[in-house]
Amino acid sequence: MNTKEIKAYGSGSTTEPLHEITINRREVQAHDVEFEILYCGICHSDLHQIHNDFGHTMWPIVPGHEIVGRVTAVGAHVTNFKVGDMAAVGCIVESCQHCEYCAEGEEQFCDEGVTFSFNSQDKISGGHTFGGFSKTYVCDEKYVLHMPAFEDLASAAPLLCAGITVYSPLKHWNAGPGKNVGILGIGGLGHVAIKIAKAMGAHVTVFTTSASKVEDAKRLGADDAVLSTDAEQMAKYVRTQHFILDTVSAKHDVNTYLNLLKPDGAVVLVGLPPEALEIGAFNVVGGRKSFSGSNIGGIRETQEMLDFCFEHNIVADSEIINIDYVNTAFERLEKGDVHYRFVIDMATLN
Amino acid sequence: MNTKEIKAYGSGSTTEPLHEITINRREVQAHDVEFEILYCGICHSDLHQIHNDFGHTMWPIVPGHEIVGRVTAVGAHVTNFKVGDMAAVGCIVESCQHCEYCAEGEEQFCDEGVTFSFNSQDKISGGHTFGGFSKTYVCDEKYVLHMPAFEDLASAAPLLCAGITVYSPLKHWNAGPGKNVGILGIGGLGHVAIKIAKAMGAHVTVFTTSASKVEDAKRLGADDAVLSTDAEQMAKYVRTQHFILDTVSAKHDVNTYLNLLKPDGAVVLVGLPPEALEIGAFNVVGGRKSFSGSNIGGIRETQEMLDFCFEHNIVADSEIINIDYVNTAFERLEKGDVHYRFVIDMATLN
Repeated sequence: MNTKEIKAYGSGSTTEPLHEITINRREVQAHDVEFEILYCGICHSDLHQIHNDFGHTMWPIVPGHEIVGRVTAVGAHVTNFKVGDMAAVGCIVESCQHCEYCAEGEEQFCDEGVTFSFNSQDKISGGHTFGGFSKTYVCDEKYVLHMPAFEDLASAAPLLCAGITVYSPLKHWNAGPGKNVGILGIGGLGHVAIKIAKAMGAHVTVFTTSASKVEDAKRLGADDAVLSTDAEQMAKYVRTQHFILDTVSAKHDVNTYLNLLKPDGAVVLVGLPPEALEIGAFNVVGGRKSFSGSNIGGIRETQEMLDFCFEHNIVADSEIINIDYVNTAFERLEKGDVHYRFVIDMATLN
Repeated sequence: MNTKEIKAYGSGSTTEPLHEITINRREVQAHDVEFEILYCGICHSDLHQIHNDFGHTMWPIVPGHEIVGRVTAVGAHVTNFKVGDMAAVGCIVESCQHCEYCAEGEEQFCDEGVTFSFNSQDKISGGHTFGGFSKTYVCDEKYVLHMPAFEDLASAAPLLCAGITVYSPLKHWNAGPGKNVGILGIGGLGHVAIKIAKAMGAHVTVFTTSASKVEDAKRLGADDAVLSTDAEQMAKYVRTQHFILDTVSAKHDVNTYLNLLKPDGAVVLVGLPPEALEIGAFNVVGGRKSFSGSNIGGIRETQEMLDFCFEHNIVADSEIINIDYVNTAFERLEKGDVHYRFVIDMATLN
């Protein structure tokens, strides 16, 4: 398979800072779309992978899975994209396409496992996949999204992971008019969740451990914001929430939030705390409650989310950075020092 | 309110054996049904209450909430029962009747909390409720079930708690043809769950820690039975189950069973382990899985369950005992020495 050399930002070990490297991308195959990357968001899972927190990082690693750009080439059999179209790629760039989940458009559940946009075995090109900290991306059009004409295109990039990660469970658990939706934690995921849940028509209450974020939650559109360390405030919310989206990635007491649910309610985790969470039997048995999880969404739903966010004028609150700031950005991200998402202007990789 | 003295079996403290006592039941009010109790099942929660395990036992306690009998009197406004009808009472004997849950027939979720058939504040008669270890029961007809003409009426008594406790989640989580349903644990609840899940048309796999119960699971109708301590066997069941009903009341590793679920599957707890259960985030986030709970069911669904079990010839595997054996029965129940439910022949209380 013919390949092209392109510039990227990557690293060769857990201790090496990200720096400019050269990678190879395949030339477009019959069903492929190639696009020039304009912006790429930085997600907490990029940080996990460059640190090899999950133990399966393949080097050199080029992170980035919130990728937007403009189409530069299409394969002979591509029907949905043409050169010049705005395009995007999120987490998934390949799946089996024949299991029951792929058939339903829920590729994230693929029986054979999906290929992620970076740090996955690349079944087509060989080697492993390289992410969006690079000049171009190439993949089968089935996994390429149509990027609506967002005024702030850079700030729309984080929707490709943060957006779908919260949109999918909000939709699945029926957030909408007449529903009380709690959002636990305000960060890259939580701040987008507030905006999307409000746009869906739900009554949104944010629960945060940080007094400084109470006001920010309201600025972001929350109807209520509660300091979760204030027991008196919290007592008022017992048995009030239909659904709580839990975006916290550190160990925390889920039972507190199960108690805020109405019967048949669910606390749905989208964060990945490294330690196990303890659940008391009474907190789920009484009221038929659930502690559930959710992980991104399928391609069809990702397109639906992008269109929904465009219609409702929703983007992430972003800090746009140059590529040579990326190592500092990761340091700040690790300390939670970003409100609420870094996005790299990929024109600065030259 | 006029009352009648009746014989019962009760106890005045955690250390006093159950023995014959006299209690007062109200005379039938306009909407009440009174029935002579023929059989009463013994449930593990009776044991918890006589031991005051939950710290809210009211003495004297008269346990029993799997109560069947024949109607002996009805109030002036009773429309659904007449003297001589077969009747039954389960866990719930009063609820607010005006909250959203009561309106939906899900009284178990009543905003004001339900009155249980024993050891609850009795809002009508005053004092606290006395259960089915007694000669008669009196309550509002709204909470009285029509008992179908089971050939083995005694063995049908446990359906009033064990039956509805498993029927409700099996129904709610759509057990039926094409669904793989796991049953975790074979005891009072699990053995009835096998029968009901099979009658619903599901493919039923039992997971048990006890080699002796593997054969029993098949006798009870399970399609497969797996010794959960056999890692090789268990590995074959990863990602196979749509739904797992977890009837275990001791601490156990739920993650093992979350891993047996297909995407969108749920492990649903109906037991009440006293210690918290640990859940790894990855075990729910990947595959949008749930760890949920369920607790009995509403009155309408309890009637539906009784009719379903009658139609499918389902009763509990029971050991019928005389009332003077009840203390020994509780000792055996505590050791798990019953296959699978004790039922008291209340004619022996004289």
